[in-house]
Amino acid sequence: MSEQATHIPAAPRQRVLSGMRPTGALHLGHYHGALKNWVRLQSDYDCFFFVADWHALTTHYQSKEVVERNVYDMVVDWLAAGLDPEQATLFIQSRMPEHAELFTLLAMSTPSSWLERMPSYKDQVEKNRELATYGFLGYPLLQSADILIYKAALVPVGEDQAAHVEVTREVARRFNNIYCAEAPILPEPQALLTETSRLGGLDGRKMSKSYGNTIAMRDAPALVEEKIRTMPTDPQRVRRGDPGDPQRCPVWEFHQLYSDAGTQAWAEAGCKSAGIGCLDCKQPVIDAIVKEQAPWRARADEFLANPKHVHWIVEVGTERARAVARKTLREVRAAMGLAY
Amino acid sequence: MSEQATHIPAAPRQRVLSGMRPTGALHLGHYHGALKNWVRLQSDYDCFFFVADWHALTTHYQSKEVVERNVYDMVVDWLAAGLDPEQATLFIQSRMPEHAELFTLLAMSTPSSWLERMPSYKDQVEKNRELATYGFLGYPLLQSADILIYKAALVPVGEDQAAHVEVTREVARRFNNIYCAEAPILPEPQALLTETSRLGGLDGRKMSKSYGNTIAMRDAPALVEEKIRTMPTDPQRVRRGDPGDPQRCPVWEFHQLYSDAGTQAWAEAGCKSAGIGCLDCKQPVIDAIVKEQAPWRARADEFLANPKHVHWIVEVGTERARAVARKTLREVRAAMGLAY
Ligand code: SF4
Ligand code: SF4
Repeated sequence: MSEQATHIPAAPRQRVLSGMRPTGALHLGHYHGALKNWVRLQSDYDCFFFVADWHALTTHYQSKEVVERNVYDMVVDWLAAGLDPEQATLFIQSRMPEHAELFTLLAMSTPSSWLERMPSYKDQVEKNRELATYGFLGYPLLQSADILIYKAALVPVGEDQAAHVEVTREVARRFNNIYCAEAPILPEPQALLTETSRLGGLDGRKMSKSYGNTIAMRDAPALVEEKIRTMPTDPQRVRRGDPGDPQRCPVWEFHQLYSDAGTQAWAEAGCKSAGIGCLDCKQPVIDAIVKEQAPWRARADEFLANPKHVHWIVEVGTERARAVARKTLREVRAAMGLAY
Repeated sequence: MSEQATHIPAAPRQRVLSGMRPTGALHLGHYHGALKNWVRLQSDYDCFFFVADWHALTTHYQSKEVVERNVYDMVVDWLAAGLDPEQATLFIQSRMPEHAELFTLLAMSTPSSWLERMPSYKDQVEKNRELATYGFLGYPLLQSADILIYKAALVPVGEDQAAHVEVTREVARRFNNIYCAEAPILPEPQALLTETSRLGGLDGRKMSKSYGNTIAMRDAPALVEEKIRTMPTDPQRVRRGDPGDPQRCPVWEFHQLYSDAGTQAWAEAGCKSAGIGCLDCKQPVIDAIVKEQAPWRARADEFLANPKHVHWIVEVGTERARAVARKTLREVRAAMGLAY
């Protein structure tokens, strides 16, 4: 028997799809909450990652500058974090009219009640009536189109987004039932629940640009140092001599993510005994963040020196994605009787 | 002064846009209610007429065969009626993903309440819950995209559709206010209220395929004759000797559209005095319809003998429309900050 005959070809990699809204420079919260995970996934899966600029417009439709400025900048952040365009397909949602076409076609068979009952819609519209647009209502359906057009098997989500994957499954199921029950076209994706770290912001609240409590992935070392040195600590530790409690201190969250067990023990003991000052306690955190950022900065500098390279990466990714999207659309159109 | 210097170029023709749903062979109601008007408009305006197959799916999403079968057949009906592809631009909505993209982009800034309050939506959904889809809710917005993408100045409408043109104006106004107040991109179209004739069906109700009371534009003469001969008349004229009243008779509607004053007077007098029988009365109507159909049939036969010609006409129209649609989309994307 020849060797070739016993060779078992590797199973095709499952496709993973995920998008990120370009609403500002990516920060450590984005990195630890999502991007680090993307980098891990890219070697095991056929990853499609896209800049969700249309999604950003569903909530930021009145401040277009935000989106405009940040699209390519976000791709640079991705590349800086270690996404490899040779492994993953990187593209921009608004460059794919195919998503809009599938969105429009899926709209025909999707009950509006499925969208009205999404908790994300109801909560946000209660807070801000300006968000009660047809586009924002349809946001989970546009997301379904994003996923289904690539027949993605897996969608990495945090727990709060599981409802969106569920609605995508329902949309696919209903489409298949109506148009192609014998040979379903749109596979129902699975949520890929992944280990991610939620990093608090400088003030202990969720790290978010709108709170002004972020450290950007590409903040310069001096700025990181300044931000950490001035961040609040245990409010009961007013003077150097007062003992503190890490549980009340936002710096402690950073230690938990960035420090090894030894450093954590040192900080905890020093805090409770007032053996160390808060600036002492913060120094290992500053060092760890600056060290983590170093390769990002190096890679970003390379890409920023060569913006055409970034455009070219997006161009290739867009064409790769388009080939898949067009194939699905052809099948969908045929199933709906629109293939003339 | 040379002649050329005094030559005043004709003002560019205003653009007219209208679509028709491919839900079956066109009948005399379609012809007299809309198509005859299209034929009149084509020489005075830059007419864009499209097969609204996506719109058909908003209400017929569960019966795709209806749409599939009727698309090119409807174009043949149009050409038979006298639409001239050298003058008017004929195309198919679903071949224009640009409409879907503009629909998606306009959705971002369009309050869903504008769509929920459309009378057409509320009435139909009350009658049929299966219609409560996101796509059917968005139908007037998709229609707005159809119109605005060609910057149409005029939309021929019956009185019952004036609300749809009004919502298109509001959608355009809001888009312009948010994204390009200094130099509005999307002109607000005007409704073009035109003289059309509403022709009742064979049973006196509105002529409609769902009532089975139609005469198709291309029904053969023998079928026309049979349909008219068997159509009900004044229910109080049971026997030949009973006098009747044209006001109670659906045939009278046909006389009003098809007969000259002399024939109408003859029919009315003969009916009221029982001087003529109903079959006598119907004969001039049969003759007039068969005569009206003759040129349609001749032209349809030509096109049916050469289906490639019809496809080619649609191909040219689609490319002509696409050039305009793409230009508008480029402007819209730039205004929304999506021009990368
Ligand atoms: S010593 Fe460290 S943990 Fe304690 S309050 Fe200061 S910064 Fe926070
Ligand atoms: S004579 Fe003519 S108008 Fe009178 S009932 Fe008969 S068909 Fe109708």
